[in-house]
Amino acid sequence: MTDNLFASLTALPPSEEVFTPLLERPGLRIERIVSTGQCSPPGFWYDQSQEEWVLLLAGEARLRFADENEDRCLQPGDWLTIAPHRKHRVEWTSTAPAAVWLAVHYVSLDE
Amino acid sequence: MTDNLFASLTALPPSEEVFTPLLERPGLRIERIVSTGQCSPPGFWYDQSQEEWVLLLAGEARLRFADENEDRCLQPGDWLTIAPHRKHRVEWTSTAPAAVWLAVHYVSLDE
Repeated sequence: MTDNLFASLTALPPSEEVFTPLLERPGLRIERIVSTGQCSPPGFWYDQSQEEWVLLLAGEARLRFADENEDRCLQPGDWLTIAPHRKHRVEWTSTAPAAVWLAVHYVSLDE
Repeated sequence: MTDNLFASLTALPPSEEVFTPLLERPGLRIERIVSTGQCSPPGFWYDQSQEEWVLLLAGEARLRFADENEDRCLQPGDWLTIAPHRKHRVEWTSTAPAAVWLAVHYVSLDE
């Protein structure tokens, strides 16, 4: 009757990162991302035109910003805003438990 | 360095529901709500002009929609979209652990 973010986690294929849209509206997308050990390819940096708000819900992850010298070690409940074009990459995600993210992508109404 | 949703929960006054804005952008607001036993006053129904996306992160809660015959019993990870003007109320929230909500309020870009 009510959807659950942690449902069906064990049924996920552990070899792939899984993106599940939870809400899609014009200019707004909320998605669940389940990582099971996946990380960004060597030398790859995300460079997104839109701002993103991200929350780690379960598991652990290490996130790296190109303008910082160290990884950020994320625990459940950690959240951050990623500014447009702030280059970042996922250095590491936990396998068991899986790293479960909530990502909110949005365009500014000023744009 | 990175904010955490579950930080400072024990320091909260248990007699009040606490609203903490996490992100505020034109047409978008993400907030944390910590309930410790609070519920909607008798006979009160929320009747919001904007759509809301809500996720229970910790604790338990019972939510009631005016157009349904039974409460929805929410567990951590349960999420739902509340349509504009769909009347609802919070019937009950857990005390220990506190009920921690993530609420996303937004206006449609179509409006």
